[in-house]
Amino acid sequence: MRESEIIRMFIEEFDNHALGDDAGFVRFNDSWLLVTSDMLVWRTDVPDFMTPEEAGKKVVTMNVSDIAAMGGLPLAFFFSLGVPENTDEKTLRGIAKGINKGAKEYGVKIVSGDTNEAREIIIDGGAIGRGSRLLLRSNAKPGDLVCVTGELGRPLTALLLWLKGEEIPPKILEKAKNPKAREREGIELSNYANSAIDISDGLSKELWEIARSSNVRIVIDEDKIPVNEEVREIVKDPIKIALASGEEFELVFTIPKENLGNISFDFTIIGRVEEGEGVYIKREDKMERLPILGWEHLKGGDYVNL
Amino acid sequence: MRESEIIRMFIEEFDNHALGDDAGFVRFNDSWLLVTSDMLVWRTDVPDFMTPEEAGKKVVTMNVSDIAAMGGLPLAFFFSLGVPENTDEKTLRGIAKGINKGAKEYGVKIVSGDTNEAREIIIDGGAIGRGSRLLLRSNAKPGDLVCVTGELGRPLTALLLWLKGEEIPPKILEKAKNPKAREREGIELSNYANSAIDISDGLSKELWEIARSSNVRIVIDEDKIPVNEEVREIVKDPIKIALASGEEFELVFTIPKENLGNISFDFTIIGRVEEGEGVYIKREDKMERLPILGWEHLKGGDYVNL
Repeated sequence: MRESEIIRMFIEEFDNHALGDDAGFVRFNDSWLLVTSDMLVWRTDVPDFMTPEEAGKKVVTMNVSDIAAMGGLPLAFFFSLGVPENTDEKTLRGIAKGINKGAKEYGVKIVSGDTNEAREIIIDGGAIGRGSRLLLRSNAKPGDLVCVTGELGRPLTALLLWLKGEEIPPKILEKAKNPKAREREGIELSNYANSAIDISDGLSKELWEIARSSNVRIVIDEDKIPVNEEVREIVKDPIKIALASGEEFELVFTIPKENLGNISFDFTIIGRVEEGEGVYIKREDKMERLPILGWEHLKGGDYVNL
Repeated sequence: MRESEIIRMFIEEFDNHALGDDAGFVRFNDSWLLVTSDMLVWRTDVPDFMTPEEAGKKVVTMNVSDIAAMGGLPLAFFFSLGVPENTDEKTLRGIAKGINKGAKEYGVKIVSGDTNEAREIIIDGGAIGRGSRLLLRSNAKPGDLVCVTGELGRPLTALLLWLKGEEIPPKILEKAKNPKAREREGIELSNYANSAIDISDGLSKELWEIARSSNVRIVIDEDKIPVNEEVREIVKDPIKIALASGEEFELVFTIPKENLGNISFDFTIIGRVEEGEGVYIKREDKMERLPILGWEHLKGGDYVNL
């Protein structure tokens, strides 16, 4: 079974759940309490260009990013470790230092930790946050502009170069080793945007998530996609890479035009929300239905080539 | 490194944490927000007498129990799965059904789920809850009575019989397959008790946790330990089994004598809290320092024999 099939089957079985967005939520006093968990399996998720410290920090980033994508204030981080018996202390201490670094950077308290013997190193992290107005995937409205923070393409470019055994330019490697969650941007957007999602699986997949959940059509403009400059210089099809690159932790959001002036940070308008269904991309004069580019862990998926 | 050493090292590295109790906590509006996570590794934690459904439910129970031991109201459950590629759908669906059953039994909403490819089946669960007055391990006071809910010994007896390949009597198997968290008792105790802990690693270990964290001496009476009747009939040293048996999910609590009359559920007084240090057990006329009986996953530990 593919990961998405497994999750669908679990949702079928559950009577009372809040699954299907970046983080789950329950009412808590007068706020929304947000909860997310995200597992890092060392063997498949940590390329050897990453240090244990970078991997530890990344687990915090992945989870804080999910809280940010809901428009929440991250409050706390927690984790469970799976540790093979022969794991050296240096690796474990590096992971601990990285978790601490991430927790400091995002201002979250570490509230729970658990360790277990396992066949491979697994760091399952989670975060909780508080929200007032939530940025659900299902709330994009026709007329909204579609925007994205930052520049795209570096994490996938780094991964593809690494898989080929080629040298990775430092500026490209930087984001693959040390991605950042957009936690301040998420909080600000909670006042003005209609929907948001973080780019963990690639822009094309995230756009489809919003379009499907909100029952809208999304139309983006190929020329507007903010591809990183270094990526543009070295890859054959920079747009494809930017659409497929995951673990960016940038935010994609949809926002009414009249609220744009309230946003204090940099972002790029890449398209708009319309009535209808699906995700479309304008290339020169043609309009094409956008395929989902990227991969799912269980299947290996369709790797995009350099 | 042993599990306890790994956790100690992580705590050394962390600047801002709330580790060291059953669940972590952060202030949230006017309440305490409680968070816990607990990982189940199929190969080591799920004996083959358990069904996938029972294992799924147990993960909910383990985590709800940690919230209960803090005196909190459980609100939500979340999980991440590690799944080998060849896992059959029946097993996964069983796990899903079990999680749903647990969530219904304890009245918690399922708020986050994540799945990943891994070398073995791992269910990392977590729970969040709300507390007003927390039952910390570190708050036992000299003069308190030491009490425990339920009866002890069945989970370890079942495990030892299973390891020997012997038949497990149904009444003993029952608690090993389907343990229950004491979530109502925990909420009630939050008004009256000074400290509490759930029995996940065995009564002797939990008593040591309270004594060390609270800087007190605990003295228990061997004759008062509530050993399950079936266990008493078939094992050589029932007291040893009751002291070592983990995954009971009973609550050990310390409470001022004058508050005992307020408690509406059944429990057993097994000893008292005094000034001093350590955990002692009265056997007939002798007083002995109580060793920690039980095991830690990474080392195999000292199994108690039947």
